[in-house]
Amino acid sequence: MSVMYNRVALIGLGLIASSMFWAMKRRRVAGHVTGYARSAETRQTAREIGLCDSVAGSLEEAVKGADLVVLAVPVGAMAQVMAGIAPHLAPGATVIDVGSVKAAVIEAVMPHMPDNCHFVPCHPMAGTEHSGPESGFAELFDNRWCLIVPVQGARPEAVAKVARYWEALGSMTETMEVDHHDQVCAVVSHIPHLIAYTMVGVADDLGRVTDEEVIKFSATGFRDFTRIAASDPTMWRDVFLTNKDATLEILGRFTEELFALQRAIRKGDGDHLFDYFTRTREIRRGIIEAGQDTDAPDFGRISKG
Amino acid sequence: MSVMYNRVALIGLGLIASSMFWAMKRRRVAGHVTGYARSAETRQTAREIGLCDSVAGSLEEAVKGADLVVLAVPVGAMAQVMAGIAPHLAPGATVIDVGSVKAAVIEAVMPHMPDNCHFVPCHPMAGTEHSGPESGFAELFDNRWCLIVPVQGARPEAVAKVARYWEALGSMTETMEVDHHDQVCAVVSHIPHLIAYTMVGVADDLGRVTDEEVIKFSATGFRDFTRIAASDPTMWRDVFLTNKDATLEILGRFTEELFALQRAIRKGDGDHLFDYFTRTREIRRGIIEAGQDTDAPDFGRISKG
Repeated sequence: MSVMYNRVALIGLGLIASSMFWAMKRRRVAGHVTGYARSAETRQTAREIGLCDSVAGSLEEAVKGADLVVLAVPVGAMAQVMAGIAPHLAPGATVIDVGSVKAAVIEAVMPHMPDNCHFVPCHPMAGTEHSGPESGFAELFDNRWCLIVPVQGARPEAVAKVARYWEALGSMTETMEVDHHDQVCAVVSHIPHLIAYTMVGVADDLGRVTDEEVIKFSATGFRDFTRIAASDPTMWRDVFLTNKDATLEILGRFTEELFALQRAIRKGDGDHLFDYFTRTREIRRGIIEAGQDTDAPDFGRISKG
Repeated sequence: MSVMYNRVALIGLGLIASSMFWAMKRRRVAGHVTGYARSAETRQTAREIGLCDSVAGSLEEAVKGADLVVLAVPVGAMAQVMAGIAPHLAPGATVIDVGSVKAAVIEAVMPHMPDNCHFVPCHPMAGTEHSGPESGFAELFDNRWCLIVPVQGARPEAVAKVARYWEALGSMTETMEVDHHDQVCAVVSHIPHLIAYTMVGVADDLGRVTDEEVIKFSATGFRDFTRIAASDPTMWRDVFLTNKDATLEILGRFTEELFALQRAIRKGDGDHLFDYFTRTREIRRGIIEAGQDTDAPDFGRISKG
């Protein structure tokens, strides 16, 4: 593959950015990749494990001369980071983010964006329960969706090139309108995570069942929940703070539905329970058929321990 | 390993029983294993794939001469099956079940148990989202807990031998009191499953986000939920109908906790969210340290597609 961007700056060196680096190296998508993280410890780790061709000591140094800048920081930090890099962006540079919500990110980033640069909001729908510079791996985006949410008046060429870039990293891409994006993600990702966090917290709180027992006997169901609930706390805090309306709406629907199942249990209505559980099994089959999952271990992913 | 039981009868040929068969074969734990399922189709499948040394055409034929009988049917079917086999049990036979709840199973089985036989309730805490005779594999129980819940007046020798039997299949074993068992399992397994079912149902119900989108963009969180929610509907219906008190209690705690997080989102209380998510991450670490999970794909399991 020929190089798509000569100089890429990764701002933030967590799971997504470090995976992007390894995915770029795999197919030589970029000429030179510079990395920057606010924490000196993270920068040191990056240097030790060869994450990025060079690790910059400042935001200014990181974005200098870059034709692609990737904002891979928590959603709540986007405005500050964007304000910090704006004066140093090269003319014509493309800036993308990788946040899980899009309305709030666009609101945070656009006021700082120079007129001669292009912002293309992105949401790679891929992740694991691990975080930090050592958690990345080249295969993270393979066959996963990356949603692209163009801002009003975006230059079509810049948007199209960003889509090709994600495809070079292994992703499938689709363009989506901003509000619709935030609602779809509340359903398929944000609320499931909130619920997993809650269940793990409840288990821990219960007096009569000891922590030791909860941990020792964590069966399949609970084990999968803890896996989800181990995701990065800062990232998820920001998701819920910045996608408030959609998450509150879906939460309302969820509790309504849960109360109906609770009533069925109380009344001993086995038919209601059976029909409900049968329907959800069908949905699962649909997901396998749509190719978003496999029966292989860990969803067919290569593991990085 | 020397044979522990000369003749084992597996009643019900789903995920658990079929895995028990392959695990028994792996180490020659049993002399001869007979299988029986109510459905002629399941019996035919079992014959075709070599599941069991012989497949019986009736309950009577299955248990005849068996020194170990395994009740591997949904909890709601235990009483009827037990009534059917009771007249045909060999004197001195041991009967075990593999149900996920224990108070209800003991209540269903004990009235039919002949005085010269021994009932030892068991709960192997292992499973996948697959079900049916073709879903079993020998490694299912490896390093997983099997809880043994002895009935009042049980013969210690029979209980101890059942524990050794599960250890021969790969399990770790622990003895637990019946009510405590049902409460622990409500927390670590039953409620997590109910919640996963609910979330998958909500996603499907929403008008504004299409089914196609839900399926297409199922990110990590939702994908894991659908995996849980694809479990056997009959089994789970019976779990909730027969462990009603404990599940309703834990559900109450769950909704309480969820409402507190919902309020934090509405008020924009990021500290509350961050602290909560950080605590659940710690619990996850405890689970890994307790050896009930690994960072390997699919929890280090061998997959059987």
